[in-house]
Amino acid sequence: MASDFGKKVKITIFGQSHSEAIGVVIDGLPVGEEIDLDAVQKFMERRAPGRNAYSTSRKEADLPRVVSGLFEGKTCGAPICAIIENTNTRSKDYDKLKDLPRPGHADFTAWVKYGGYNDHRGGGHFSGRLTAPLCFAGAVCKQILERKGIHVGAHILSIKGVKDIPFDAVEINAETLKAVAEKAFPVQNDVAGEEMQAAITAAKGKGDSVGGIVECAITGLPVGVGEPMFDGLESVLAQAIFAIPAVKGVEFGAGFAVAELFGSENNDDFIYNEDGTVKTKTNNHGGSLGGISSGMPLVFRAAFKPTPSISMEQDTISISKRENDRLAVTGRHDPCIVPRAVPVVEAAAAVAILDLLCRM
Amino acid sequence: MASDFGKKVKITIFGQSHSEAIGVVIDGLPVGEEIDLDAVQKFMERRAPGRNAYSTSRKEADLPRVVSGLFEGKTCGAPICAIIENTNTRSKDYDKLKDLPRPGHADFTAWVKYGGYNDHRGGGHFSGRLTAPLCFAGAVCKQILERKGIHVGAHILSIKGVKDIPFDAVEINAETLKAVAEKAFPVQNDVAGEEMQAAITAAKGKGDSVGGIVECAITGLPVGVGEPMFDGLESVLAQAIFAIPAVKGVEFGAGFAVAELFGSENNDDFIYNEDGTVKTKTNNHGGSLGGISSGMPLVFRAAFKPTPSISMEQDTISISKRENDRLAVTGRHDPCIVPRAVPVVEAAAAVAILDLLCRM
Amino acid sequence: MASDFGKKVKITIFGQSHSEAIGVVIDGLPVGEEIDLDAVQKFMERRAPGRNAYSTSRKEADLPRVVSGLFEGKTCGAPICAIIENTNTRSKDYDKLKDLPRPGHADFTAWVKYGGYNDHRGGGHFSGRLTAPLCFAGAVCKQILERKGIHVGAHILSIKGVKDIPFDAVEINAETLKAVAEKAFPVQNDVAGEEMQAAITAAKGKGDSVGGIVECAITGLPVGVGEPMFDGLESVLAQAIFAIPAVKGVEFGAGFAVAELFGSENNDDFIYNEDGTVKTKTNNHGGSLGGISSGMPLVFRAAFKPTPSISMEQDTISISKRENDRLAVTGRHDPCIVPRAVPVVEAAAAVAILDLLCRM
Amino acid sequence: MASDFGKKVKITIFGQSHSEAIGVVIDGLPVGEEIDLDAVQKFMERRAPGRNAYSTSRKEADLPRVVSGLFEGKTCGAPICAIIENTNTRSKDYDKLKDLPRPGHADFTAWVKYGGYNDHRGGGHFSGRLTAPLCFAGAVCKQILERKGIHVGAHILSIKGVKDIPFDAVEINAETLKAVAEKAFPVQNDVAGEEMQAAITAAKGKGDSVGGIVECAITGLPVGVGEPMFDGLESVLAQAIFAIPAVKGVEFGAGFAVAELFGSENNDDFIYNEDGTVKTKTNNHGGSLGGISSGMPLVFRAAFKPTPSISMEQDTISISKRENDRLAVTGRHDPCIVPRAVPVVEAAAAVAILDLLCRM
Repeated sequence: MASDFGKKVKITIFGQSHSEAIGVVIDGLPVGEEIDLDAVQKFMERRAPGRNAYSTSRKEADLPRVVSGLFEGKTCGAPICAIIENTNTRSKDYDKLKDLPRPGHADFTAWVKYGGYNDHRGGGHFSGRLTAPLCFAGAVCKQILERKGIHVGAHILSIKGVKDIPFDAVEINAETLKAVAEKAFPVQNDVAGEEMQAAITAAKGKGDSVGGIVECAITGLPVGVGEPMFDGLESVLAQAIFAIPAVKGVEFGAGFAVAELFGSENNDDFIYNEDGTVKTKTNNHGGSLGGISSGMPLVFRAAFKPTPSISMEQDTISISKRENDRLAVTGRHDPCIVPRAVPVVEAAAAVAILDLLCRM
Repeated sequence: MASDFGKKVKITIFGQSHSEAIGVVIDGLPVGEEIDLDAVQKFMERRAPGRNAYSTSRKEADLPRVVSGLFEGKTCGAPICAIIENTNTRSKDYDKLKDLPRPGHADFTAWVKYGGYNDHRGGGHFSGRLTAPLCFAGAVCKQILERKGIHVGAHILSIKGVKDIPFDAVEINAETLKAVAEKAFPVQNDVAGEEMQAAITAAKGKGDSVGGIVECAITGLPVGVGEPMFDGLESVLAQAIFAIPAVKGVEFGAGFAVAELFGSENNDDFIYNEDGTVKTKTNNHGGSLGGISSGMPLVFRAAFKPTPSISMEQDTISISKRENDRLAVTGRHDPCIVPRAVPVVEAAAAVAILDLLCRM
Repeated sequence: MASDFGKKVKITIFGQSHSEAIGVVIDGLPVGEEIDLDAVQKFMERRAPGRNAYSTSRKEADLPRVVSGLFEGKTCGAPICAIIENTNTRSKDYDKLKDLPRPGHADFTAWVKYGGYNDHRGGGHFSGRLTAPLCFAGAVCKQILERKGIHVGAHILSIKGVKDIPFDAVEINAETLKAVAEKAFPVQNDVAGEEMQAAITAAKGKGDSVGGIVECAITGLPVGVGEPMFDGLESVLAQAIFAIPAVKGVEFGAGFAVAELFGSENNDDFIYNEDGTVKTKTNNHGGSLGGISSGMPLVFRAAFKPTPSISMEQDTISISKRENDRLAVTGRHDPCIVPRAVPVVEAAAAVAILDLLCRM
Repeated sequence: MASDFGKKVKITIFGQSHSEAIGVVIDGLPVGEEIDLDAVQKFMERRAPGRNAYSTSRKEADLPRVVSGLFEGKTCGAPICAIIENTNTRSKDYDKLKDLPRPGHADFTAWVKYGGYNDHRGGGHFSGRLTAPLCFAGAVCKQILERKGIHVGAHILSIKGVKDIPFDAVEINAETLKAVAEKAFPVQNDVAGEEMQAAITAAKGKGDSVGGIVECAITGLPVGVGEPMFDGLESVLAQAIFAIPAVKGVEFGAGFAVAELFGSENNDDFIYNEDGTVKTKTNNHGGSLGGISSGMPLVFRAAFKPTPSISMEQDTISISKRENDRLAVTGRHDPCIVPRAVPVVEAAAAVAILDLLCRM
């Protein structure tokens, strides 16, 4: 098991979808940082289910209870532990899934890995619900980063082929990031947003689901964040982002498009700003050179697969009967995880960036 | 710094492009494993420079000297250390680069990060040359994996838009992986390979460079490899792959294409094989569900940017003069890193997979 | 901060003496292990305060609430999190200690380290109360170890110079360990135990405190547990044991006495048992050779300083006045921590041993 | 295997007694630090064999070759790797030890742990020879510490019961540490030193060996070094010190003697120095309170067992014959390891302290 992340700022996530509670321990935070728990709560609500017609109807208060690590409202050097109770579990929904593993889920792989001892209810430790404590940790880290002038923000770049306006990798700034974050449906182009929502609703109507892409930018990073090789910015961020369920691809800057460019097109020339600082004219490198921040906005994208839980009938196996079988997943599931994934991507990125920043 | 990787099987890479030597320490390997050093050498030659018209003319013997960790030819429980001497360094080529950071390289970011104390010669610790010891480690891990029936192989999927036939994610097997690895230019479709080489040669002629995509498959993985969350297969592999210089994107299975699929299209149905084992009909999940191997081939792709060192003149800054300047990179550089990156991707993947396998 | 321990079985302890709650996350446990929470509770009661005339009168239920990681009573592959509420805190007792650091405590060092942001109440994260979650973790690990035939047990070897009969390093066995653990005052010689208690009571009467030595044995360890060098048995156990507040010395086997022996006296000759297994005739090495278990009982001792909180007046400084001052520590404190430390030593050892065992 | 140590400053030691070479990789050092390799060499000579009548006659140049990590004589952010060739190996000496494990050595435990694949020659990876690269790492760390006003020094406190004058835990300073380090036989009282040497010579004459105690002090540590719980000063130092072969006990400050003290005797009262800094009147706590440095000298002692390799005949087993046998260890062995262990203790302490310092 490895539900922990980070070397200086370290988080450990615990819980299963239907255990008594879930939560996170955060160790190694800078000391004396005031944490605004209302702002944390507000951030977590961006991820919370049940906010619109197409998201899962499992509503939970998801109020994190901070039981340690803050003293007089500030980080005190001791690990923060936040607990979120699981109050609205309907384990019965999952009874048959113990026998019939859902295609696209970890039901089968976890069952084999743990010899049948895994908590299958609601996906157990593999549930998307475990991104709630990740969001708690991310919200705490974001506050500390913001105090240092570093902003992390994301938007929906595409859903089922409908595209939002990408971030301008050179000009993106904190104001734009905040503005998009405040939207109920975080896109830059609200018309595209309407189309995306229509695509989600249409899929839901058919008992189907859709995927999409989240784009994230980090502004205000000083030059020099990131360690060489295996702890480069891309390596550490990718490790964190791929830990979010349903992510199947991560790319930085120009990303996969670099494969079709000449070096003379892809290289970002250095020039001096008027204030004597250095920037690049373009930002195909996405803010990272040699795994180290260049001072340009860090920009990356993550591809999310369509929610695997669909009510359309699919082929699967019956473990008990040892024969092929059919399954229609009932229960409460988002037809598209992407809108709720936006703050999760921000959270994972914030934890990773604060860890690297504190390791300098 | 973090030039180490792995939790059970751990590698630590040392050296700079122009230091006396480079090398790697590998700790935590299974014990009693015979290591065929000729096969290791052969694998490393796939990465070695100077093998064809368009690769860098810096030729080095690159003979690794194993100074510890093997006893009577077998792993003995003590860490393996392999040293590769740097015999053919032309540091003078890099003198002016201390002042004029190369666009697309770590020259500028490393200079800031290390306060000017970094070894700039040849890119120092950030040089692609450091992938030689990674290949040594990967070759050792591959041998151990192969003895367990696990094969890691990669090919060039595309260069500058010219595409090879992708691996069949369901049918890919050890034989196909070995066959492509033996080729001087590792593609499945040699006609496409010719076109790719023509594209590289054309770019070289213009003093330019091109990028591409490497696709890698791992066959024979048992179900259950990979840990939840931050040490899932995708997280650990991506951390390793993004540590290879020039990688800007990593995707698994259907990758970024999932963003345009319905759940009903993307889900891979489970069925029983005749022998009672389980497989999926399709393999959009790329062999990983919940970060854990499903028993299907693990398939991923990595995008490599065009070599940033180009002889065409580019804008950059002069650090000493504190003004904008111009730079044409001389010295020995591949116009396309992709062909030599193929074994590097295999190596990084092999180290990551053996580590996860040994952690079960 | 580094309130975590272990590489395969990992624990993370959180909480402060007067935070809302304290607790522990345990990750990486073997899967499918039934955990008897009543037995865990019983073990924790051996550490609980308020059990006799001379221990602190702070009584707490200390009922750990397991919110995750168990499914149908068994470890399920997800991290266990146990929470213990802090219900009986009297923070006012500690108000003046923010200004007057207690000699022998971490008040001063934590205040400097954390720039005054540390939670000083009751010693904060440095409080002996944090050994409660350590005991929870240890109790869980002990159960798993016992199922493998490995027993961890400790007794009071001495208090203020009064000595119990040491464990017989060759003959010590599970039965003896269990018998001593069941005693309210865990000594082998109850007469010595009476004398020790008299010494404690006498010290308490004078507003003073006393220290002592705990001896711990681990039986049933197979040969081969422990990794070379920095993760040898002694290194890992010592790291865990020195994490217990008040420990100032740790020794294995003959310990410091080896300094006065000839090699011919200290060496433990190997001989065959009748069943073909190997043992040593004597056990001066304390069960570890080269940091690896020899199959003989592992025996070590830990020295505990007298409780630094004493009601006798002592010299200290006033931080606010920046002048020397006087302090008599009021509040609830054990005049001797040693009896309650016995299960804590067992717990730390059990966690360390299970981690090393699972890394083989 | 775990031949690595440290979280920020990390060392990885490789090699076996009779492998081609041994060495160490040091990662995470502060950047821009000039390393005086002559001084490193001088430090390593304090550990080198063959310096007097009673130490092993295996003489080796032990010249470390630094192949990476320094640029223009300074740390450059890339890992340092130092190689020491094994030029004077007499593997034949060890042939029979493959069958007859030496009492007190790791021969038997390593043979079982590694299923017979371990390199038995000269103790393989468990050999005291591996302390040479540890000394290299320690010498590098010491130089960096000294530039920050932190000095690490040790002396022989006792051999076979003959006692040197202990360090004054309050008054010990850099000058005293340097003075004792310069001595060929590092004791404060040279008369006691003569007696110790006589005891060693006498033991050698009988084919026997003796043990002893090394005392180490670290001066100039600022307040606040060390992390809570498992990464407290005592925990981290003990982990490092117990990794030195033959160490069976480690104690800090008053150490095991605390068990016989009253709290009122053992507590170290705080007082202000004239310059407004804080000290304690006494130093029974040995410079660490709650695992964090107090600003007082850090003082600890390590007990070394007598060299287990003795030429007197001992009982052991014949693995091949599966019966009890007799063994007289020939080859080159120190009758007392303590004098050569003094710099090794300093080295291990220096690495541990620099790591903790860089983690603040």
